[in-house]
Amino acid sequence: MALIGAGRMARAHASNAADLAQIRLAAVYDPVPDRAAELAASLGARSAASLEELLDDPAIDAVLITTPTPTHAAVIASAAAAGKAIFVEKPIADSLDAADEAVRAVEAAGVPCQVGFQRRHDPAYRAARQRIAAGELGRIEGFRGVGRDPQPPAFAFLLTSGGLLVDMGIHDLDSARFLVGEVTTVQAIGAALIEPRLAQHGLFDTAVATLQFENGALGTLEVALRTAYGYDIRAEVLGEHGRIHIETDIQHHLRMYTRDGVCHDRPQSFVERFKEAYVAELRAFAQAVLGGLPVTPDARDARASLRLALAAQRSLETGRSVRVADVG
Amino acid sequence: MALIGAGRMARAHASNAADLAQIRLAAVYDPVPDRAAELAASLGARSAASLEELLDDPAIDAVLITTPTPTHAAVIASAAAAGKAIFVEKPIADSLDAADEAVRAVEAAGVPCQVGFQRRHDPAYRAARQRIAAGELGRIEGFRGVGRDPQPPAFAFLLTSGGLLVDMGIHDLDSARFLVGEVTTVQAIGAALIEPRLAQHGLFDTAVATLQFENGALGTLEVALRTAYGYDIRAEVLGEHGRIHIETDIQHHLRMYTRDGVCHDRPQSFVERFKEAYVAELRAFAQAVLGGLPVTPDARDARASLRLALAAQRSLETGRSVRVADVG
Amino acid sequence: MALIGAGRMARAHASNAADLAQIRLAAVYDPVPDRAAELAASLGARSAASLEELLDDPAIDAVLITTPTPTHAAVIASAAAAGKAIFVEKPIADSLDAADEAVRAVEAAGVPCQVGFQRRHDPAYRAARQRIAAGELGRIEGFRGVGRDPQPPAFAFLLTSGGLLVDMGIHDLDSARFLVGEVTTVQAIGAALIEPRLAQHGLFDTAVATLQFENGALGTLEVALRTAYGYDIRAEVLGEHGRIHIETDIQHHLRMYTRDGVCHDRPQSFVERFKEAYVAELRAFAQAVLGGLPVTPDARDARASLRLALAAQRSLETGRSVRVADVG
Amino acid sequence: MALIGAGRMARAHASNAADLAQIRLAAVYDPVPDRAAELAASLGARSAASLEELLDDPAIDAVLITTPTPTHAAVIASAAAAGKAIFVEKPIADSLDAADEAVRAVEAAGVPCQVGFQRRHDPAYRAARQRIAAGELGRIEGFRGVGRDPQPPAFAFLLTSGGLLVDMGIHDLDSARFLVGEVTTVQAIGAALIEPRLAQHGLFDTAVATLQFENGALGTLEVALRTAYGYDIRAEVLGEHGRIHIETDIQHHLRMYTRDGVCHDRPQSFVERFKEAYVAELRAFAQAVLGGLPVTPDARDARASLRLALAAQRSLETGRSVRVADVG
Repeated sequence: MALIGAGRMARAHASNAADLAQIRLAAVYDPVPDRAAELAASLGARSAASLEELLDDPAIDAVLITTPTPTHAAVIASAAAAGKAIFVEKPIADSLDAADEAVRAVEAAGVPCQVGFQRRHDPAYRAARQRIAAGELGRIEGFRGVGRDPQPPAFAFLLTSGGLLVDMGIHDLDSARFLVGEVTTVQAIGAALIEPRLAQHGLFDTAVATLQFENGALGTLEVALRTAYGYDIRAEVLGEHGRIHIETDIQHHLRMYTRDGVCHDRPQSFVERFKEAYVAELRAFAQAVLGGLPVTPDARDARASLRLALAAQRSLETGRSVRVADVG
Repeated sequence: MALIGAGRMARAHASNAADLAQIRLAAVYDPVPDRAAELAASLGARSAASLEELLDDPAIDAVLITTPTPTHAAVIASAAAAGKAIFVEKPIADSLDAADEAVRAVEAAGVPCQVGFQRRHDPAYRAARQRIAAGELGRIEGFRGVGRDPQPPAFAFLLTSGGLLVDMGIHDLDSARFLVGEVTTVQAIGAALIEPRLAQHGLFDTAVATLQFENGALGTLEVALRTAYGYDIRAEVLGEHGRIHIETDIQHHLRMYTRDGVCHDRPQSFVERFKEAYVAELRAFAQAVLGGLPVTPDARDARASLRLALAAQRSLETGRSVRVADVG
Repeated sequence: MALIGAGRMARAHASNAADLAQIRLAAVYDPVPDRAAELAASLGARSAASLEELLDDPAIDAVLITTPTPTHAAVIASAAAAGKAIFVEKPIADSLDAADEAVRAVEAAGVPCQVGFQRRHDPAYRAARQRIAAGELGRIEGFRGVGRDPQPPAFAFLLTSGGLLVDMGIHDLDSARFLVGEVTTVQAIGAALIEPRLAQHGLFDTAVATLQFENGALGTLEVALRTAYGYDIRAEVLGEHGRIHIETDIQHHLRMYTRDGVCHDRPQSFVERFKEAYVAELRAFAQAVLGGLPVTPDARDARASLRLALAAQRSLETGRSVRVADVG
Repeated sequence: MALIGAGRMARAHASNAADLAQIRLAAVYDPVPDRAAELAASLGARSAASLEELLDDPAIDAVLITTPTPTHAAVIASAAAAGKAIFVEKPIADSLDAADEAVRAVEAAGVPCQVGFQRRHDPAYRAARQRIAAGELGRIEGFRGVGRDPQPPAFAFLLTSGGLLVDMGIHDLDSARFLVGEVTTVQAIGAALIEPRLAQHGLFDTAVATLQFENGALGTLEVALRTAYGYDIRAEVLGEHGRIHIETDIQHHLRMYTRDGVCHDRPQSFVERFKEAYVAELRAFAQAVLGGLPVTPDARDARASLRLALAAQRSLETGRSVRVADVG
């Protein structure tokens, strides 16, 4: 397997891949050669001189794409044309047109293409989906998604990330689709409370939204780029017979009892919260590729999550309710 | 003190008043004489023949009004004119005009008028407000309110309750004002998922909303009339330096560990969750009246919560974003 | 009802009795007349000149005894001879001989005598006992009791309290009997870690013990006079099919999320943890007396808990395993 | 690295080693050749014909010993003589004499020898030790260890395991030493409640004990071979300024809210609870061996935990208090 992109997510995936017997990382490509070389060296892999050279290597069965989102579709298309199995970070693309190009490319080439919505492979989210499918909640009537990062990324990244609900909210919106079903309408409001300079660019660091689902359920979404107290990811699903609540509120299961009360730590990063899920998604990808099984979520599925995220972002930017069907 | 109204809330307050040395319930009035007589008998109080007779009784210092909401303003006005201190269940009225009438009446008469938003007297809500006021969260950036009843009330009650967000959501909206500050805009969507007959009356049993606060914070609201799992009341306040979470997730602090996992019970009713707060609001009322101190929340404060609830209800019914300033 | 004794527990019970319609506190007696007068005044009750005078008052149906433990048996005997229903704080006496005197007196007089093991009336302990009786845990195989006070009482009190396991551990030992059954053997070790001066008096402020139950179950006990973090009372019962865990780990259901982690408060005193149980035991006493029903725990039952506590204390003092049957 | 022993623990460690870049498993030896061959095949390693052949292989730098406890000392001695770095499952031996032999062998050969007390590498236990060392609890006054397995192992294993407190309680006793310090005296009682046939062999499946520490602290220990509700491992440390509580009470951070209350799952096995610790102890071993650093716990440290466990087991079997200094 080869890494295309050698940034933070590449390193995180590489570290997880190192734990998996099914995956060997043989090569790294990045437009910044030094970055590729450094990561390759740390992995005992070679640094590819160009994307073409890497894709021409017949020893490479699969690629793991972590380049900036605007490049995803083109890299997917190249990798698909080269017959490689593809794992690409979310979102699949930065526009529906680009996503369509990616979907067409992988479907034409008949290669598997899994998109990095790691929560789909988290034990709690998987168990939730199974319980819902088994009818334990009865009819589903509500959803709540919370996604809050501890600290905002670099300002420069925010300017090109595609927007709060596309870059970050897409995880929670994908969870909404995974657990409840398709969303028909979204209404979002936002603010630039944490990084006020964003306002000058029409961008937001904090948003809340309401969601109307096809099956009648209603939902809320809360997204922000800073918490001060750690990584805050929650999902709730309400049904006729009860509620499922997913939240990792404690990290190391040590509680301190002092005159200040009872205190425990929290996950501070996506790595701490979703370590197991990140490993599981790579394992699932490797097993699917090796076993000729379908990957999940695939490009078409990820395109639907992108469309929902674009609808939410449009609502955020226009202040209007947006029908998902009207996007793209 | 006298009870005006002898229904469920009257009995609940009477039971709590019995625990308070400062309050003696001397009389009960209800338009249905048998109901008044029955409750009066159980309290060792007399049953008043008419509202006028009760208000004429100089031995009565204060009244506790739990009649249907549409009657509140007129009863408040009569009681104020009679010089009685007033405790009235929320909401203060069913319209802003009626609320204004009530506010004018109590201010003209110079009598205290406390409105039954019991959460304002709950230890957790009070502590939250103090911590926020002390700056422990820094600037406030977000709010979430959840209010879900275990089971819907009688269908007939729902038809005249004033609507989901006025009758029930008003508690969470009042908490939003108490903890964060004034709301400028609300956008709600709803459905009749639990009691589908409501749809024919343009009514809802489930709603979600987004809130825009004057101080820049953003919020969400989730309200429903059935949970299957008990009484679900939560409030979250987010700030620059952290988050406050109020939720009573366990009732009796007994956990069962079996092959089915770890299970504990939950509060099943507002009585179980807010018993302490209901007692505290009556105690605070009695202390304020006896000590000549201001009551809280007073009629003017409660009018502001009603206006917000009416704005939310209007948004729910029209599908449009509603500015609170445009209501009334 | 009259109070005999006007100290801390008398005031606590009086405050709870004020919440109960079935109880009216009419008189107070204490060997220190000023103390009696002060409490009586605050209750609107009269101060009795002597115990005899109080017991001669035919308007007094029941007495609530909170005098020092060494006086319990004699006061119980006098009250029983006067035909009063009796509620007495734990322990019923400071020796088995004195307890026997108390049991004989109340049984001879045919008056009810309830002893203040309030946990027997706490909802969690009651639910635990019901679940155990219903067989939900199958055969009972283990018990753990923890009893830790936030701060030690006055040194002078400790010198006359009867010892750590008699004054304080008796609550947990009574819970062991209530939930699991009779204990046959106890082996305790202790230390004076918090108040080193106790060592000179052969006394302890910290103890741990193992318990052997008649039904085969094994248990542990942990008692201490200081925690720094609040009132720490726990009970665990293990069975063939699972475990019950009773612990009130949170007081006001508000959680703070900050850079320091997630923190919440704890009960700081027996009043906070067992408020409901203290009210419930008085209510149960009143209802039993008024209804002619048996009280629980009665004098005989409380004598058995005292015997177990004396056995534990003897083990603590001798460093040897003590059979409960060998005590008394 | 080579595996000596190919049973359950060997497979568990092999699975974890596969996640570590620093470790390559090259060979497997087991007295049962088929078992060795099968595990070797699954690992892509070779199966060694004899222990000698394996130890003669210069490509093997280190061995991971999971053979039955009675064989540990001899295998350690052979491996040490062959100059291999050694990782051996707990306990280091089944007797103090054998442990002494092992200690002498590794010290004479100057090879590292780490013993598999994985909790020492668990983030919660490590954090607890750091907080204690930093004085956050002040003087340490108490300890509680709980170790309960979901289901007993095979009866045949129990007959040769060395006894409940040596085979299983040793983990909690090692934690006691790691967190609080040396134990001077232990007093245990036990029963055969789960597997009554054990009684005929003088063996136990359930035990409780009190511990007296050198620094004055007092502790309790609870060990059993069945819970019905999963893997129950807890450690508590009490000090002057507070308490540390280590317990993993939830596994997948999904809570179900239904009419039956609030339920969540628990860890069901040591693999689920200590997965991270098992990986961490192997990683620490590899890093220490590769970096020439000391391993922890080493043979001498593990011998001290064995001595404590033997003292506890002797107390369990004799019914007497046992001074640790009197063992061996």
